[in-house]
Amino acid sequence: MIRTLALVLALGAALTAEAADKPTRIPDAALKTAADLRERASGDDTAWNFTEGLTTEVGARLAGGDNDQKARDWVAAKFKALGFDKVWSEPVTYPKWVRRSESASLVSPYPHPLSVLALGYSPATPNGGIEAEVVAFDSLDALKAAPDASVRGKIVYVGPRMHAKKNGEDYGKVGSPVRTGGPSIASTKGAAAFVLRSAGTDDNRTPHTGVTDFAAGVKPIPAAALSSPDADLLENVLKRGKPVTMKLALDCGIEGTYTGANVIGEVTGKGKPNEYFIMGGHLDSWDPGTGAIDDASGVAIAAAAAHLIAELPQRPKRSIRVVAFANEEAGLYGGKAYAAAHAKEIAQAVLGSESDLGADRIYLITATVKPSSRDAIGQIAEAIKPLGVEYDAQAPGRGGSDLSAVHEVGMAAVSLHQDATRYFDWHHTANDTLDKIDPEQLRQNVAAYAVSAYLAAQAHGNFGSKPGEWAADGH
Amino acid sequence: MIRTLALVLALGAALTAEAADKPTRIPDAALKTAADLRERASGDDTAWNFTEGLTTEVGARLAGGDNDQKARDWVAAKFKALGFDKVWSEPVTYPKWVRRSESASLVSPYPHPLSVLALGYSPATPNGGIEAEVVAFDSLDALKAAPDASVRGKIVYVGPRMHAKKNGEDYGKVGSPVRTGGPSIASTKGAAAFVLRSAGTDDNRTPHTGVTDFAAGVKPIPAAALSSPDADLLENVLKRGKPVTMKLALDCGIEGTYTGANVIGEVTGKGKPNEYFIMGGHLDSWDPGTGAIDDASGVAIAAAAAHLIAELPQRPKRSIRVVAFANEEAGLYGGKAYAAAHAKEIAQAVLGSESDLGADRIYLITATVKPSSRDAIGQIAEAIKPLGVEYDAQAPGRGGSDLSAVHEVGMAAVSLHQDATRYFDWHHTANDTLDKIDPEQLRQNVAAYAVSAYLAAQAHGNFGSKPGEWAADGH
Repeated sequence: MIRTLALVLALGAALTAEAADKPTRIPDAALKTAADLRERASGDDTAWNFTEGLTTEVGARLAGGDNDQKARDWVAAKFKALGFDKVWSEPVTYPKWVRRSESASLVSPYPHPLSVLALGYSPATPNGGIEAEVVAFDSLDALKAAPDASVRGKIVYVGPRMHAKKNGEDYGKVGSPVRTGGPSIASTKGAAAFVLRSAGTDDNRTPHTGVTDFAAGVKPIPAAALSSPDADLLENVLKRGKPVTMKLALDCGIEGTYTGANVIGEVTGKGKPNEYFIMGGHLDSWDPGTGAIDDASGVAIAAAAAHLIAELPQRPKRSIRVVAFANEEAGLYGGKAYAAAHAKEIAQAVLGSESDLGADRIYLITATVKPSSRDAIGQIAEAIKPLGVEYDAQAPGRGGSDLSAVHEVGMAAVSLHQDATRYFDWHHTANDTLDKIDPEQLRQNVAAYAVSAYLAAQAHGNFGSKPGEWAADGH
Repeated sequence: MIRTLALVLALGAALTAEAADKPTRIPDAALKTAADLRERASGDDTAWNFTEGLTTEVGARLAGGDNDQKARDWVAAKFKALGFDKVWSEPVTYPKWVRRSESASLVSPYPHPLSVLALGYSPATPNGGIEAEVVAFDSLDALKAAPDASVRGKIVYVGPRMHAKKNGEDYGKVGSPVRTGGPSIASTKGAAAFVLRSAGTDDNRTPHTGVTDFAAGVKPIPAAALSSPDADLLENVLKRGKPVTMKLALDCGIEGTYTGANVIGEVTGKGKPNEYFIMGGHLDSWDPGTGAIDDASGVAIAAAAAHLIAELPQRPKRSIRVVAFANEEAGLYGGKAYAAAHAKEIAQAVLGSESDLGADRIYLITATVKPSSRDAIGQIAEAIKPLGVEYDAQAPGRGGSDLSAVHEVGMAAVSLHQDATRYFDWHHTANDTLDKIDPEQLRQNVAAYAVSAYLAAQAHGNFGSKPGEWAADGH
């Protein structure tokens, strides 16, 4: 008995190992249905109506703010109206940051009002504001290299420019590091406050807010973004070589914690309902605009894609899960909460992708999956090629924003890269409004997501999701 | 004696009449010098430095505001530094309008903050603002046709769109009439306040201010412009068919009168110093931006053109006069004051042109002159043709803005038409800043103005300036 059992177990293990190596394959029938989905998506206005509705009937959605609960109610009702089989919420808790007011001006040698927005997690200035001399740097490295004495008690300005690129790389290379890391560095040198040239590619008087991060043990100092024309003005004044005094008054800060939620909708699969393709966007937005491109459209794209799949004559084999994530902006809180809550059964999330780079045309697909599912990714890529999407089989694809946090606990991920050329003109500004969405490009996004989701749901075999599999990706 | 005298007088009259009919002609030597000027202008940064200096060292220049005197001092000093032979001021008096603050929001059915700017000459709302239902019209005609009862006590919104065009015609056809005339019409119907979709071609959250006009006997009501995305939002909310309530709080209004001045610089002619070519721009600007395209660049172009002429080995035959006009924005006060002060000797202003449509490429020259000087205008057109400027000999050219007021008292006028495609994206907004100026196109403007001014100054014969000559042009 014991020998027989051992043999059976050994045989089972061998079969499992063989199954793991067997290439994941998408059946022809699924590819045919996907082609129909692609065509239907290209003429469907669900995502537009979703984006228009959320931005018009709710508007700005600062995490923990007045519209947080309202937005969750709106999305849950919308998911139900779109025919999802299940809709539920999972709690997400985070520090609540509040913006009340902000203003800035040059005091001398030439008085000018300045367009400014406080950064997320910035503390307030003392009542009446800070008035101090400005010391300017053209990069974070230059600030790091500066003697503390040259910075102490001053308002530090760091002013590198971002340039518009299709892959938006200057945000990761230039804009985000200065905004996220600059205030902390300035604080350690004794600066009174920190201002940056907005992390954006436009020349509008609409500053780009966004979160900053104070390292543990570092005293938070007031931190704000100037619009790019205001940064130009400041630099032109500084060029004259006289001492420049700025006044900065920020009324903002952390007010305890808030518990919001990820709102989740599901089209439940017929064959393997516990396994799912996961896609989504984040429901929160920064407050100066109505959060159309960041990220109503992301949630809308996923919801519309799932809706089109729900309208097929048959439910897919696996489930399609759409997540409207909570508080991405202040630090991927929704994604981290989802990852923590679902880490143990992360193998059920067979593949995932989040849309959080606006709604312009998807031009590239990449993936981080197990090698034996690479051909299946190739099949997905082939199915969205008619939409103008290229495939790079070498580059990683970590799922984007919140889902990158889920990827790090073991979810196989695909990235559908949007053209980011226009995105950073409006990102985190008052200009993030509905008019920035191009309905035709939005539909192309829906088509790519619908096809990818459906094909992953129908695949024979998985994509390698497994607890701990891609933990190193976050490092 | 008497007969002889009569004969002499008759002969003199006949000779004068003959001289009047003799075609005005620009000598070859002048054309040669003009070609050199054109080349020098194309490599000259005087206008850029002027625009950068005025916008950086002074900034916003609301007529009668804190920077009014400062701007006049700056320009007078700059004219001297540029080598002008004479610099003086001529007083201009007007009602002083003050902007203190403004805010607007949708109250119901969906609360939203709105980006808004009060219009020039708008009165304030009562303390605490006005909260009223919105009634919307897509044109002034629709508002005119509405029964008073449908408007009474409400906030009237009028929302036609302007479209970007090279000749900027939608401003005159759509934007300006709604802004200038709408509040007065709404008031006569008993409206509580008036808001419009900004008279602009952009999709930025930067509303376009500008002057409005209350007809005699009409009670002024609070009037403001929404940014175009805010107007879209309002229209999308209205489409849902529920009553829409808006709150509008404006703190602004007229505070007595102010006496500013036109600042005038002259390169004095050697042969006919009392005759002059007149060019310029207006020194005042709206307050949300730094008034770079409207109209620091206009004054800069004229100043740079005159400076290049002043640097020639010889003074021109006639004088070159550059005017930085006062308070164009609230109603051509500077131009009207100049016209009134110089009406009697207007024949001395042989030809004039004002730059007040930004600093993008000049693509067209037109003129309103006496027929016998048409060939001389053709010579000027030929001299600026290498700059890419076409000539339309049939279309009128009234000199632009303030100089159109001077044209109406008899100054012959030439118009150097700038490409206005981008101009109304930024006009009267916080986005009117230095970065919107393209240095290369600015230099092309200087070249066209320098050549036109110099050739008019050297012409044999005049262009028909005479008191009362083009009085009908204003009607």
